Order: sequence, then structure tokens, then C-alpha cells
Amino acid sequence: MTPPHREDTERPVAALLVPDILTLLDESPESVALDTAEMHPADLADVAEAMPEDRLLDFLLALPTARAADVLEYLDEERRTELFEGLTARQAAALVSQMQPDDRADVLEEMEDERAEEILAEIPAEARAETEALLQYEPDSAGGRMTTEFVSAPETMTVEEALRGVRTMARSERREAFYTVYTTDVSGRLLGVMSLRELLAAPEGGRLADIAWTEVQTVSPHDSQESVARIATDYDLVAVPVVDEDRRLLGVVTVDDVIDAIQEEQTEDVQKLGGMEALDEPYMQISFLHMLRKRAGWLSILMVSEMFTTSVLQHYDVELRRAAVLILFVPLVMSSGGNSGSQSTSLITRAMALGEVTLRDWWRVAIRELPSGIALGTILGVIAIVRIFLWQQLALYDYTDNGRVTVIRFALTVAFALVGIVTFGSLTGSMLPFLLKRLGFDPASASAPLVATLVDMTGLAIYFTTALLFLRGTLL
Amino acid sequence: MTPPHREDTERPVAALLVPDILTLLDESPESVALDTAEMHPADLADVAEAMPEDRLLDFLLALPTARAADVLEYLDEERRTELFEGLTARQAAALVSQMQPDDRADVLEEMEDERAEEILAEIPAEARAETEALLQYEPDSAGGRMTTEFVSAPETMTVEEALRGVRTMARSERREAFYTVYTTDVSGRLLGVMSLRELLAAPEGGRLADIAWTEVQTVSPHDSQESVARIATDYDLVAVPVVDEDRRLLGVVTVDDVIDAIQEEQTEDVQKLGGMEALDEPYMQISFLHMLRKRAGWLSILMVSEMFTTSVLQHYDVELRRAAVLILFVPLVMSSGGNSGSQSTSLITRAMALGEVTLRDWWRVAIRELPSGIALGTILGVIAIVRIFLWQQLALYDYTDNGRVTVIRFALTVAFALVGIVTFGSLTGSMLPFLLKRLGFDPASASAPLVATLVDMTGLAIYFTTALLFLRGTLL
Repeated sequence: MTPPHREDTERPVAALLVPDILTLLDESPESVALDTAEMHPADLADVAEAMPEDRLLDFLLALPTARAADVLEYLDEERRTELFEGLTARQAAALVSQMQPDDRADVLEEMEDERAEEILAEIPAEARAETEALLQYEPDSAGGRMTTEFVSAPETMTVEEALRGVRTMARSERREAFYTVYTTDVSGRLLGVMSLRELLAAPEGGRLADIAWTEVQTVSPHDSQESVARIATDYDLVAVPVVDEDRRLLGVVTVDDVIDAIQEEQTEDVQKLGGMEALDEPYMQISFLHMLRKRAGWLSILMVSEMFTTSVLQHYDVELRRAAVLILFVPLVMSSGGNSGSQSTSLITRAMALGEVTLRDWWRVAIRELPSGIALGTILGVIAIVRIFLWQQLALYDYTDNGRVTVIRFALTVAFALVGIVTFGSLTGSMLPFLLKRLGFDPASASAPLVATLVDMTGLAIYFTTALLFLRGTLL
Repeated sequence: MTPPHREDTERPVAALLVPDILTLLDESPESVALDTAEMHPADLADVAEAMPEDRLLDFLLALPTARAADVLEYLDEERRTELFEGLTARQAAALVSQMQPDDRADVLEEMEDERAEEILAEIPAEARAETEALLQYEPDSAGGRMTTEFVSAPETMTVEEALRGVRTMARSERREAFYTVYTTDVSGRLLGVMSLRELLAAPEGGRLADIAWTEVQTVSPHDSQESVARIATDYDLVAVPVVDEDRRLLGVVTVDDVIDAIQEEQTEDVQKLGGMEALDEPYMQISFLHMLRKRAGWLSILMVSEMFTTSVLQHYDVELRRAAVLILFVPLVMSSGGNSGSQSTSLITRAMALGEVTLRDWWRVAIRELPSGIALGTILGVIAIVRIFLWQQLALYDYTDNGRVTVIRFALTVAFALVGIVTFGSLTGSMLPFLLKRLGFDPASASAPLVATLVDMTGLAIYFTTALLFLRGTLL
């Protein structure tokens, strides 16, 4: 079966095949496997997700076990959990045994501990040990992301032996990390690396030690998935080897998991930048209460911090009552500082995430942001002056407060306050990620709302100070 | 040479080798190639970047041309441009001829048109035609990202013939997309795909047509790099084939370019989310004026929009003069709406970028965000009530405005306004990306500052309306 394409989606809409497959399941379940044999497991997972829940199990059982396991790897977490609840431990074990070791560990990680134990107990001993080893690592560490099915060979092996081995392996097993061959010494210590292409190109009769590169980029199993992604990206690797303290090869993180890690880290960064905790689950699948918890914390902290603006306003109570015209530009002046800060924060947190900027570069950033802030503030200041004069000329509003202040003085107050606040915003927004990183926090926590809140308080103080300077003797 | 590691970086600090390499360049330039033979080109590029500018050319010329071309691929754009300026067109052509076709096109794209033409003229005819074909596509399209060096074979070929061909190819050429074999008909139309592993595992004597998968995911050369990334991620592909309207295979986008595309798109999204245009260049390399242009536009638009708050405040001028106590909570109330909107916007734009949410899902999102907004607003409202009563009790401030209003009425005004504003913020923040996408704009343009600005105006109106409702007859 070939999934049809629909105009407004980039992917074939496999879900449209559901009715056909359901009919087939009713009439001749044995032909389901054959009819879907050419379909990619990702498309079959789409079909499975669009199917009525009570038919999902029938559908997967109609597929060969290895194929069903492939589909499971692409199924969304919620659906997968539901499905496993409908299986006996033995049935579940048969399925997960066919999965790649790293995906198997991920699936078991999602379940209740007790249930995972039950299923693990039914898995063949070797695969069980392997899975238990993987389960001991944090899911977002190199160890949690790695697969234990890689290709390694003693460095004394000849090219021909290695090629024969690779071919046998290709037939008998489903090694995920197939295109990189690692050479080891007798005790399994990593010595070198070559691509399968280099192995294929090697002159016959040579030994692996002759062609392997001895300069190998490695990670420890406890390294973050972020650092694995950094190495894979910097060196264009399709697999990153994970070694223990003795440089023994434990596993490899393959490029598809590297991409997943990159996407996951990016999602976290964007959510933090938006002013909340990272959700850890897709937006459409997370429970309502769970999402609320992730959002309410920061929202409350930000509001409590923003209360200082109330205190600042209380402090300038007298001035405010005497010069009510100042109030009009409070939101404008505050938001401009927040906006420029938001720009700087996104620029710097992203540059840090990409490794373009490190802690040492803080002063280099500061001497870029200082003139940027002044220039941007000046542009906004000029716009504000134009607006104030325009409104006054068109008699839309009387900024002289019944003649007690000149328009020019008031306009200059707003303009200079803008220069000060936008400069302060740019500096705060750019330096906060450095400060957080220096203190050991995630620089991505320097969210746009947090910067805006910090700038709001100071911004008000800058605005009123400028006003006192420019309007002294007239309004104040 | 092995680059040393430094504690605070994840990558070896190749730059520390610079003095050794400079000495070697002076004393025996012919041994530079041998001494650095085991180093990864990415590390050599780090060395090159840390070197005094006037030695860079000597260093690259001391390496074999193919190796120098590898280093060039990893060099940062600025350095590379400088370097090419110091070369004759013929020298430059010798270097770029050795690069992968897609990287070669990228490098030429960076140069002045005239200079690129000069260099192109010196490149051998076949490579020139290939490069010119690639240069016609937008750099961020599938065509701009693809390489023309892929492995394809007629589907009638036997497994043994194909394997021999692959091995010869591995020796003679540097095909980037080596691990996926495409089968074609006589006129070059794409028919099927297999991984190199599947080819190695295939029974001898079979034909490629027997083992190839006929369900192939393809893109058009004009598709965006985003959709290439989506397909590679969804189907875990190490290469995505690019075909023309007749399904003739034009090239493939390899996984390293997919990762670059993902990173690039993500950088753009984060920068837009921060309220500016995407920079297109790394933060530390972009020119000051260029960066200013990317930031000033949105900052000005946002400020001009925020001027409507001034109009709203002017509208409520009388109320403000009569009930100055209302002013105190203006920043708090406004920022809370902006913050909840910022959360929703980052959640939704990211979910859209990942394909978790499509245009059709808008109402599903709306019925999640509506109760979220109400719940979050209620939490903030309760905090505000506690704060107001606390300050009044501790005599830190007199919210009764000299007894003209009861504390409870004032507290309720703020609390109910918060519920309204946070709900409005969440809805605006979540619906804006849908609206933008529906209108054909990039949903990522729904930046946190833009949402905050939209919510500020409405927020003020909600606040004053609530005040009129609760304080009518007392203060107002």
C-alpha cells in the first residue's frame, strides 16, 4: 500500500489508509503483513495512531514481531503505554526484545517500575543484562542515548576478515551503528575508528590498524546529550563512541539519536526562553495539571518580582500626582527596555547553545551590546519625540499639562529615558545568560519575561530620574 | 599531533597547538602534513582560525590540496573569505575543486559574484557544470543543500556487480552520501532505495530490484530545508533524495546538512521569538550595522504599537487622576498578561516547528489554553490579593486612597483584572501563530515582545473596565 499525499502536508497521510487496513484485518488478517510490507514503519505508526484503540493490538499482532517492534519505536508515547497495558508480560517481552537496545530501554523507562520489571524478567538473559546496563543511565545522558549494538574488531584483524565479518553481521543482526567500525585492543579498549567506506576502500591484505584513525572523539556515558550533539555536529560524525574511564567501548550514540537530542534540547531552550519550565512532553500530550505546574511557578515568580515596580511607583507617588502626564509613557518606556532585552537574551542564549560564545567572551559581548543599546535607544527616542510633537501640534493631547511644562522638555525626558532604558535592557539581556552560567545555572533560564521584569523596575527608576532632571522647577 | 583537552571546554583545544605548528612551518614545512595527518579537519580548522592571519595561507599550502579543502569546509566564513582574497583564481580553483560539490557551491555563494565567476572559470568543466547547477537553487532549499555525489545503480544490476561498483567507488571517489544506494530506470528516474547494510546482506546472485524498497521519501529541489529536515527526522534517514518533476534523481541531502539545517532553522526561530529579524550570520561575526538593522525594525514597530497604550491611558485620564492608586498596579497587570502570552507563544511556535501541531489543531489548542489562562490568572490573582492585604495590614501603603475605597474592592479589581488579562494573554499568545500561518506568514514571527505588546493595550482596557465595575460609586 502507498500512503496518498495531501496538499497541505509535507508527509504522506498514512492515516487515510486506516479504513482499508481495518477491512483487511477483518477479512484476511494474514495479508496485512504482505500488503504493508513496503511501508516505512513511521507511516505504519501513523496508521496505528489513527486507528480505533481497540484495533491497535490486533493490527500489531498481524505484523511479524520484528516489524511490530519497528512500528512501536515510532509510536507516540501515550499510545505505546496504553498498548502495553493490554499485553501480557510475555507478549510485551517478545515485542521489546526485537527493538534496538536503546529504544527498548527508552520504552521500559516510560513504564511504571513494577511493570517494567515484569517485562524485563521475560526477556532473554543476554538482552536483559544489556537493557539493565542501559537503564542505569539518565535518559538524557550519553549513556541513556547510546546503543550497545556497534561494530568493533581487534586492530590486528585483516581487512578481508573484517569485511567478511561485517557482511555476516549485516545478514544476521540489526546493528544500528553500522557505518562506523571501531578497533579495540584485547581488553576492549578503543584504539581507532574508520568509516565503512574506508574499510571497503582499504587495500586487501592490510590490517585494520593500518587504516584506522587513532584520533577518536569520545564521550563518557555520564556526559550530557548536549555535548554528544556538539561533538557530532562539530566533527560531522554519524556515530559518537561512549567509553568508560579505562577507554573501554560501552556503546555508540547514532546520528538519529543525536538529532532527537538536538530537537529535545532546542524545545527545552525555547520553552525556557518563553518564561516557563521545560515541559518534557509534547504540548498536545501533556496533562493539564502537569502543564499548569510548569507554567505557574515562573509566572508567580515573575509577578512577585514585578511587584517591585509597584514599590517604585509608590516611591514616586508625589511626583506622579503632580505630573500625571508622566504616567502616559510608563508602559511605552518599560516595554521598550523589555523588548531590547528580549532580543539580546535570545541572541546570546542561542549563541551559547551553539558554542559560538563561551563564558570568556562576556566582555566582547558587552562591548557589542553597549553601542547597540545606545543606537537602538536613540532611534526609539527620535520616534518618541516625533510622536509627542505631532500629537501636540495636531492638538490630540496637551503634554504641557496646562502650560506647566514645555513640550520640548517633556519630549526630551521620554527620549533620554528611552536611550538609558534600551541600553540597560540590552546589557541586562546579554549579561544575564553569562551570569547564570557562571553561577552554575542553565543560561537558557534567562527568559525574555525574566529580563523584561528586571528591566521594568530599573526602567521606571531611570524614567523618573530623567524626569526629575529635565522637569525640575517646572512640573516637579 | 594530539590536541590537548582543557577542563572548561568539551572539545580538545586544538588552538593550543598553534605555536608548535608555526615553528614546524618555519623549520620544516614539508613535515606539517605528516605531523597533522591524524588530526580531524575540524581541529585543523580550529588551529587555522587561531593562527596569525599572515600564516594561514602558508599553513594550508603546506597540506595536501584535498586535506586543505577539508579544512576549508570547517573554517569560519569570515576567515575563508579573507583567505580566498589572498589567492589567485587558479589557486582558489584548485582548492575548491577538491571540496564536496555542495560545500563548493556554498563557498562560492559567499563570495562577490565577480570573484566567484573568475574561480569557476578555472574549475574543470564537469565540476563547473555541476557547481553551476547547484548555485541556481536558494541556499536554504533542498537543492541548495544537496550534494550531487550519491550512489545510484540501474535496478537490473546484480548484487555482486553493485558491491564491486561500491568498492571501486569507495577507493576512487569521495562520495558523501555513501550509505544509501538508489536504484533507477534507464532514464535516471528513481525507483527504489536500500541501505548499504541491506546491499551487503543481500543474497548473492539477486538483482537490486529484488532488495530495494519501492516506497521512497523524496523532496523537490525547491522544497525548504525545513521540510527536508522534517522527513529525515520522521523517517530516521541518513540521506534524503531530491528529484525533479519527472522523478529523476538530482542529488541527496546528507544527514550532516540536515543537522545544519535544523540548527539554522532553530536559530532563526529563537531570534524571531526574541522579537527581531533572523540574523543569518553568527552573532560574533555579524557587522554592527547589519545587526542594528535586524533589531531596529521590530523594536520600532513594537514601540509604535505600544503607543496605543498611551492612547488608552489618555482615554482613562479622568479616572487616573481621580484614582491614582490604580496606577500602581498597571505594570504588574500588564506584564502578567505579556508573560502568560510569551509562554503560550513559545509553546505553540515550537510545537508547530516540530510538526506536533498543525493549522487544523487551532481549536484543540484554544480549548487547552482557555482553562490554562483562567487557572494561571486565578493563581496570580490570589497572590495579588495577599500582597495588597499584607501591605495594608503592615501599613506599608494605604490602598484605600484616604478611605475613599475599601481594600477588598481594590484587591478584587486587581485580581479579576489579572484573571481576564492572563486568560486573554494565553489565548492571544497561542492563537497568533495560527493566525500568522493562516495568512501565509512565518508563525515564528509571533514573538514574545509582539504578543506582550498586543496584550498590553487590551490588558489596560481590561484593567480599567474591571476598575469601573468594582469601584463605581467609590473612587470612580
